Amino acid sequence: MIDEIHLKKFISILDQKGILTQDTDMEPYEKGWRGDHGKAALVLRPANTGEVSKIVSYCVQNNLALVPQSGNTGLMQGSTPDQSGIQILLSFERMNKIFEIDPVNGSAHIGAGCRLSKLNETCEEFDLHFPIDIGSDPCLGGMTSTNSGGSRFLKYGGVRENTLGLKVVLGDENGTILDLLMPLHKNNVGPDLKHMFIGTCGIFGLITEVIVKLAPNLKQQATALLVPKDLASVNILLREIEKRLGTYLSAFEGMSGEALKRGIEHNPNISNPFAPEGIPDYALLIEISRTWDKRDAEQSLDEILETTLEELWEFPNTPLANAVIAAPEKLWDIRHGLSEGTQKSGKLIGFDISFKRGDLIAFKNHMTAYLKENYPHIAICDFGHIGDGGMHFSLVIPFDHKHAKDTDFQTNLRKNVFDIVVKKFGGSFSAEHSLGRINMKAYQDYTRKEVKEINRKIKSLLSPASISAIEFE
Amino acid sequence: MIDEIHLKKFISILDQKGILTQDTDMEPYEKGWRGDHGKAALVLRPANTGEVSKIVSYCVQNNLALVPQSGNTGLMQGSTPDQSGIQILLSFERMNKIFEIDPVNGSAHIGAGCRLSKLNETCEEFDLHFPIDIGSDPCLGGMTSTNSGGSRFLKYGGVRENTLGLKVVLGDENGTILDLLMPLHKNNVGPDLKHMFIGTCGIFGLITEVIVKLAPNLKQQATALLVPKDLASVNILLREIEKRLGTYLSAFEGMSGEALKRGIEHNPNISNPFAPEGIPDYALLIEISRTWDKRDAEQSLDEILETTLEELWEFPNTPLANAVIAAPEKLWDIRHGLSEGTQKSGKLIGFDISFKRGDLIAFKNHMTAYLKENYPHIAICDFGHIGDGGMHFSLVIPFDHKHAKDTDFQTNLRKNVFDIVVKKFGGSFSAEHSLGRINMKAYQDYTRKEVKEINRKIKSLLSPASISAIEFE
Repeated sequence: MIDEIHLKKFISILDQKGILTQDTDMEPYEKGWRGDHGKAALVLRPANTGEVSKIVSYCVQNNLALVPQSGNTGLMQGSTPDQSGIQILLSFERMNKIFEIDPVNGSAHIGAGCRLSKLNETCEEFDLHFPIDIGSDPCLGGMTSTNSGGSRFLKYGGVRENTLGLKVVLGDENGTILDLLMPLHKNNVGPDLKHMFIGTCGIFGLITEVIVKLAPNLKQQATALLVPKDLASVNILLREIEKRLGTYLSAFEGMSGEALKRGIEHNPNISNPFAPEGIPDYALLIEISRTWDKRDAEQSLDEILETTLEELWEFPNTPLANAVIAAPEKLWDIRHGLSEGTQKSGKLIGFDISFKRGDLIAFKNHMTAYLKENYPHIAICDFGHIGDGGMHFSLVIPFDHKHAKDTDFQTNLRKNVFDIVVKKFGGSFSAEHSLGRINMKAYQDYTRKEVKEINRKIKSLLSPASISAIEFE
Repeated sequence: MIDEIHLKKFISILDQKGILTQDTDMEPYEKGWRGDHGKAALVLRPANTGEVSKIVSYCVQNNLALVPQSGNTGLMQGSTPDQSGIQILLSFERMNKIFEIDPVNGSAHIGAGCRLSKLNETCEEFDLHFPIDIGSDPCLGGMTSTNSGGSRFLKYGGVRENTLGLKVVLGDENGTILDLLMPLHKNNVGPDLKHMFIGTCGIFGLITEVIVKLAPNLKQQATALLVPKDLASVNILLREIEKRLGTYLSAFEGMSGEALKRGIEHNPNISNPFAPEGIPDYALLIEISRTWDKRDAEQSLDEILETTLEELWEFPNTPLANAVIAAPEKLWDIRHGLSEGTQKSGKLIGFDISFKRGDLIAFKNHMTAYLKENYPHIAICDFGHIGDGGMHFSLVIPFDHKHAKDTDFQTNLRKNVFDIVVKKFGGSFSAEHSLGRINMKAYQDYTRKEVKEINRKIKSLLSPASISAIEFE
């Protein structure tokens, strides 16, 4: 559905492999991870930054709408076209080159279309990895433009803290290439412009190459499931475990009983790790890890974890009700199955929110009372990252309840929850999934006027034209 | 030397304690850490952000020059007035409040004038600290606006990675207060504007309050001095020690023999740790640490370090020539004495530069040959942070050599070295000391045209008026 003259131009920029126009070929690019389905005018698949620049330049000059996409694993509709059929999808999938792994520097220079799994497989021989731990297998471009976080954020930080350099194509008439590809760990030579492109979903410019930091592989892990005595004990456990195991601590995750129930129910390979007891109201998954194998005289991480848990049992007014040390794969399978299990169990209204760490449980308590009173048919299936204040606050409406299909109700509910998150608790409406089309209303509603004004101005300074699925306006 | 009408206005904004006009009172504010000495028109000492805003607003409206200063421990002349006598020094020293320590969140909200030592003393009761480890005792405002790094950067990152939120006064006619004081660890709601103020020395706006991350205190440390077999072995040791001790590794520092000699000579309390052998050509200080005390069945960190060193001795073609495990205070005293010792031993031409980690030794080798051939009277007294690629490349000219007073020679030498750092090795002319007046020429010389253009535009967007010691022009 694209003008013949434009198509000819794109053919002159890209080779044949670079353009898809058939509906069946385009369909995979039009579908989002959470079931959204748009319509692209065509799909362009450039092979390098130069081609991206030419495409952007032409599109800006001719006022053609672009939607960038790399791994298309995002949850916020930031990488799929809308229904209009006039947006050109710009896929980075062919820009998946690994330009360099520098093991001494602990860095990798890769294309925006390189999958996380491919990067990590390639680093394997150097005993290194990119330490952002997430359930899906995104590409580095999307991870950078959304600033992915994940389960080991409390140890490694997110993509922002692990990015050394970027190459970006700006949304102007020249498709200006901005080269910020410095591989340095320490570098203070003025404004660190790369931060304007990290987490801004392509609005300020399209990330085409990245240099990321690599971390030594983890050679030993030990994990435990803890059942806190009550919700108030969660923060006590967090503090005490950080003191006792801080250097080793690589994850401190929370899982509600409702999420656990659904995760276990929908995954026949998993059973209740606390059986024969029932699934608890709340459980924590903690992981400790280190970069070396156990040496002869050294205690294993399991032993160290055990000693720590013994200390916590003996703690005055012990914050523990139950604890099980089990194999990491087994416990992570449970944790990573929560999202799918929850989604299958009813109509999901998902929130990716964050708080000061101490407020996370306070918010959960508040919402439990609020929903019980106002919407008793909605189940709270929250889980997430206690260690960094992030929470996947998943509300599930039974499929057969009228609200499951009532989009007005859902929009209203979403607004009510966000108001409580932001206004009552000073939290964030987007912890780690970034903006995307889904969060743009929240951005408009909850961003200070003066910040929106600055964002708009920076936008028009860096990328005057619109080149991504969303826009600051 | 300030107009009576301006003075009256400042008196109306600040109370009496807030203004210094006498030469003797102003002198401490006019002197920099490395002996530079300027002249201020007067010193203003606001007590809160509101007062800073009023001062900035008035100064912008009346075209009065401002120089912000917090701890005044910077090394690049970013916090002292020039010789003109017309610049107004804006001291943050009274804004030293600790608004909140939140131990569960692991964060502290403090004023820009709060000293690092005061913050850490206050956090002590919660077993927490702000993990930027540097020799001096700066204030948090200066640390943030220069993005300080330090010796434990490889473990904790720098100030940027440990800053959650900021409050800033912009350089416009209203002295606009921009509140970015979010205490969240995970937060992705659009551009993270705080990064434009971190490391930009007040050019984009004056930081008045910060929220920083706190880390659990280190309860155990072990340190060793290693003498590598040769310089080529340094990178091997870095990689092997990261693999073996990565999770514990908190410092990996390099020290040249020339720097060690001077550091030890000028500090009577320190002796050669390798005695009776002479001071080696190069040595490494490595530190491992953890957040808990040794538990009964656990190996101590000294034992773990010993085991690792044994492994390295047995390594094929061992990269070690000598190794001593000694008390952390003792070894850190040596490391922290290098700067002063070097400075006292001759005319110091100091560089704070950085490289890809693997290039650091290559640069050292290159410069050794280059200087030997061209300037054999200059001693290379480098030391720094192998673990993050940062190097304090200190050149010392004997006091009695004619070049010690020849500023043209020194300017020329500085330019030659920077050319090699940036053009030949792709390194940075400023690793962690930031810009300041001293580095502005290098900024002009080595920053890409398009980046300078963007910086200027962001400057005029955020802070159209000049409000700091330096400027992007």
